[in-house]
Amino acid sequence: MGQVAWKALFLSLFDYKTEKYVIAKNKKVGVLYRVVQLSILAYLVGWVFVVKKGYQDTDTSLQSSVITKLKGVAFTNTSELGERIWDVADYVIPPQGESVFFVMTNLIVTPNQRQAMCPESANIPDALCAKDTDCLEGEAVVAGNGVKTGRCLKDKGSTRGTCEILAWCPVEKRSKPKKPLLGSAENFTVYIKNSIRFPKFKFSKMNVLATDNESYLKTCRYSQEHPYCPIFVLGNIVRWAGGNFQEMASEGGVIGIQIEWNCDLDKAPSECNPHYSFSRLDNKSAETSISSGYNFRFAKYYRDAEGVDYRTLIKAYGIRFDVMVNGKAGKFNIIPTIINISSGLALMGAGAFFCDLVLLYLIKKSNFYRGKKYEEVKSSSRKSLSSPTLNGNQSPEQLGEL
Amino acid sequence: MGQVAWKALFLSLFDYKTEKYVIAKNKKVGVLYRVVQLSILAYLVGWVFVVKKGYQDTDTSLQSSVITKLKGVAFTNTSELGERIWDVADYVIPPQGESVFFVMTNLIVTPNQRQAMCPESANIPDALCAKDTDCLEGEAVVAGNGVKTGRCLKDKGSTRGTCEILAWCPVEKRSKPKKPLLGSAENFTVYIKNSIRFPKFKFSKMNVLATDNESYLKTCRYSQEHPYCPIFVLGNIVRWAGGNFQEMASEGGVIGIQIEWNCDLDKAPSECNPHYSFSRLDNKSAETSISSGYNFRFAKYYRDAEGVDYRTLIKAYGIRFDVMVNGKAGKFNIIPTIINISSGLALMGAGAFFCDLVLLYLIKKSNFYRGKKYEEVKSSSRKSLSSPTLNGNQSPEQLGEL
Amino acid sequence: MGQVAWKALFLSLFDYKTEKYVIAKNKKVGVLYRVVQLSILAYLVGWVFVVKKGYQDTDTSLQSSVITKLKGVAFTNTSELGERIWDVADYVIPPQGESVFFVMTNLIVTPNQRQAMCPESANIPDALCAKDTDCLEGEAVVAGNGVKTGRCLKDKGSTRGTCEILAWCPVEKRSKPKKPLLGSAENFTVYIKNSIRFPKFKFSKMNVLATDNESYLKTCRYSQEHPYCPIFVLGNIVRWAGGNFQEMASEGGVIGIQIEWNCDLDKAPSECNPHYSFSRLDNKSAETSISSGYNFRFAKYYRDAEGVDYRTLIKAYGIRFDVMVNGKAGKFNIIPTIINISSGLALMGAGAFFCDLVLLYLIKKSNFYRGKKYEEVKSSSRKSLSSPTLNGNQSPEQLGEL
Repeated sequence: MGQVAWKALFLSLFDYKTEKYVIAKNKKVGVLYRVVQLSILAYLVGWVFVVKKGYQDTDTSLQSSVITKLKGVAFTNTSELGERIWDVADYVIPPQGESVFFVMTNLIVTPNQRQAMCPESANIPDALCAKDTDCLEGEAVVAGNGVKTGRCLKDKGSTRGTCEILAWCPVEKRSKPKKPLLGSAENFTVYIKNSIRFPKFKFSKMNVLATDNESYLKTCRYSQEHPYCPIFVLGNIVRWAGGNFQEMASEGGVIGIQIEWNCDLDKAPSECNPHYSFSRLDNKSAETSISSGYNFRFAKYYRDAEGVDYRTLIKAYGIRFDVMVNGKAGKFNIIPTIINISSGLALMGAGAFFCDLVLLYLIKKSNFYRGKKYEEVKSSSRKSLSSPTLNGNQSPEQLGEL
Repeated sequence: MGQVAWKALFLSLFDYKTEKYVIAKNKKVGVLYRVVQLSILAYLVGWVFVVKKGYQDTDTSLQSSVITKLKGVAFTNTSELGERIWDVADYVIPPQGESVFFVMTNLIVTPNQRQAMCPESANIPDALCAKDTDCLEGEAVVAGNGVKTGRCLKDKGSTRGTCEILAWCPVEKRSKPKKPLLGSAENFTVYIKNSIRFPKFKFSKMNVLATDNESYLKTCRYSQEHPYCPIFVLGNIVRWAGGNFQEMASEGGVIGIQIEWNCDLDKAPSECNPHYSFSRLDNKSAETSISSGYNFRFAKYYRDAEGVDYRTLIKAYGIRFDVMVNGKAGKFNIIPTIINISSGLALMGAGAFFCDLVLLYLIKKSNFYRGKKYEEVKSSSRKSLSSPTLNGNQSPEQLGEL
Repeated sequence: MGQVAWKALFLSLFDYKTEKYVIAKNKKVGVLYRVVQLSILAYLVGWVFVVKKGYQDTDTSLQSSVITKLKGVAFTNTSELGERIWDVADYVIPPQGESVFFVMTNLIVTPNQRQAMCPESANIPDALCAKDTDCLEGEAVVAGNGVKTGRCLKDKGSTRGTCEILAWCPVEKRSKPKKPLLGSAENFTVYIKNSIRFPKFKFSKMNVLATDNESYLKTCRYSQEHPYCPIFVLGNIVRWAGGNFQEMASEGGVIGIQIEWNCDLDKAPSECNPHYSFSRLDNKSAETSISSGYNFRFAKYYRDAEGVDYRTLIKAYGIRFDVMVNGKAGKFNIIPTIINISSGLALMGAGAFFCDLVLLYLIKKSNFYRGKKYEEVKSSSRKSLSSPTLNGNQSPEQLGEL
């Protein structure tokens, strides 16, 4: 081809090609198509964009820092411990004020334990014995407190007893106060400070109201009326989580404090506020009692004048609070917008395909429209490409379109 | 239909149907269309694929394990405590070296507290009294240290005093050293070991350089020049977070150490490296002083020769470091690639639709092109489907296309 | 235009426009197109929908709460400590039973440390000295235990010694038992209770089997045969993680216990079960010994009759277990379904485009088909729009289609 032909080729690149349409003057299918189009448009605008905010890029991996601080004192008067005051340093474990904190509300104290030999508790099946050979020396008691010494200790006249063990003696007696010792913990308050950051959008916020009124933050209590006050009464938290404080204080339990940040960063930062919810995390159903309640043991170690260690073992029952922060931030982004719009457009194509099926196969005159839509071409044997025969629209039988 | 007809139907399944196009020899719209096509292609390739890595599947839920270890000793000489050395076991709380650790830098010590009766601190508004009836017996002091005994203790000749309380006595005096006790903590170092794993891609890595040069890891300090050294000087961390160490050491505070893993797993694993950033998490603005600083109380319990418990209460001020790990790994995956490509193709369709609008409604000869693009067909009443009338391309008025 | 014209315009809105197709009776391209269509369909149905569950909306940000409880006692008999029993309160740090817990298996005890002056350990390079001026007064020993007093302490007749330091004296001697003290920790068990919640779908579950058979939960041990038993033997965990318990017990280490919840919420909740996996998180490779092992120091503080504090420093080696929960829940949702379907449809368009290329440029008769597919129109200079010339299909040269 000469230079002219190449120029023609180049120019033809800028010819605009547009699909040829056949107008089927069939009002039924026409109305159907418009209905389909409107439905898709309504779905796209109403559901995808307005409700689901499909035009936003979302960030769900937020960084969060939680500081907690408890306040409150309790007074107890028991035969065992006498009159005693419990303050924050006594009942909060660990003391640092992290996102998971434990308030001790009931306890079994076993004071003055020393390394010695003593009978194992009679409540442990593996420690029951009738004769010395039942207590294999050096064997640890299964789910027990020590290692067997090989002797079976029996009360006078009794045929059964418990193995003697090497342990911290005396062993813990298995009974705890029915009424929680620190039932008044119901009135304690906890101040929860939560800073969050959405790294993708470099957006930071805090759950503490930026207010001039400092005394508000000292005296307020969180409630429906004060949704932005970060100070919570423990009794309220347990009640909102569907629990009974006195019951949980006795047996222990775990309460989840969910803080949810659901932020639309296309709006003002002040619109991005935390939403609190409370739930009980340990299973309280009766049939699986092994999985309900919450307790753990710890000890305070002392040394006497002779340099021998002894300890006070404490089995602590109480409520563990897990502050769990999760959140989602959305901000306009062109990519999800385009993905959603173009999925809507592709859907329009699917709608057209569906209407085509109706037009071409389901209505009375479908044969006629099929003939119009499809133009059959067959290359003639003459190969006279410069003057092809016009044989479109004349073949009557157009079959089998998917 | 006979067998032959069925065969024809089956064969027609393999006829290839291709859309019929009308070539509009209009250079303006043609150029417009090519420009639109190129823009979409540039957006798809440049933005979606190169910048946003749209061909990758991403995993943002990484598993992370952090081990921290502090080093450093400080010497203090105060009238209260005398000459004293502070080492890691003294100032790191909790000692385990988890991702959240606290370095005590200032403290108020209240030694030898015992359960007894003593006057409440005069700084607590609820404990101020003029007469005994102001101190309701058995009532806890709001935001105070104990339970009122019912007596109002006044200095001689004074008309006002504070309620007597049952508490750990003496109560804490509310004053802390202006100058932080452990100001030299600025030179302490922390070694942060972080292992991460992207479960979706089964990819694990560690922030500690796999090096033969072990002494490098013992002597290096993280800085711009040593971005892969995992040993940080506390003073530097605070400075990079925009804080003043001595000020924070006095009042306490929370520093976030963000470790970000942004990994392109299509590249070599050695290209996947952590990026550290530091920020102050507690609000230091003056107007909300309630939310700034960081401190907590804990006690060391002792028992005297008579078996009576006493304790040393410590109000610890210091800097809490929260190591927060987040990350994102991307790896080639066919599904997001196809979604993005096909959204681009659908966009081409939208571009063609836009150019159609220009061609059919906005240019001078749009009526003519409308007539060409749309071929009106009407089923004739004769229903002679074997020879339909050719009435395409002759009706001049094609209106109302969306 | 009059009212009639407007009415016509309105009615024409409900004309159905359908693309005009050209049927190319070319079996090769026809078969190719059907193959392409089937491949896309198979990919869409088989991979995107069946394998990748592309019809589901997923939630990967789960809330999780973990409670752990250890059981087991160990007996040791060393020259230093004598016969001693170790129970849960002795070896679990911290005692609260959170998701990260540490089991002490080996330790270096330095009892009766007091604030005093003593020689620094000879293992610390910075403390070595030949004369007093090597020990700058008031300078902290780098990576050491105290502050130099300015004197160099030498053994008789030796020319080199170590600096005297102000520290908790005596300083720790750097040697630990080769054989782990609490090697029998291999048989300890840990009960892991994990509650999870997918906030997006408001779905909660627990890893403890809801069973009537309570004794099962007390006696079972997790294994391949008991995948839903939440009680684990420590030795098994370490073995499954690819470690050697006795070796790790001696040097310390970190084990990750991954709990993965991969839930298809379109199925019954009972089908949503945890999957456990175990991995070693600290680097155990020899070349970076600085990063292997796990240990930390803590102290127990005592006060003698004169009111002077002394402490027992413990360097604890042991295994830290990090329970890491991650998960993903999927539930049918219309939006991802539509995005995936329409990306498939757009792909069909891409397939047709590819077959067009074959038809129009690669086969023998492509020139002929090109002439059929593209109908060239040129507006005549007469602008007689009511009777445009029919000049489609006659121009032989259709070039340059993208």
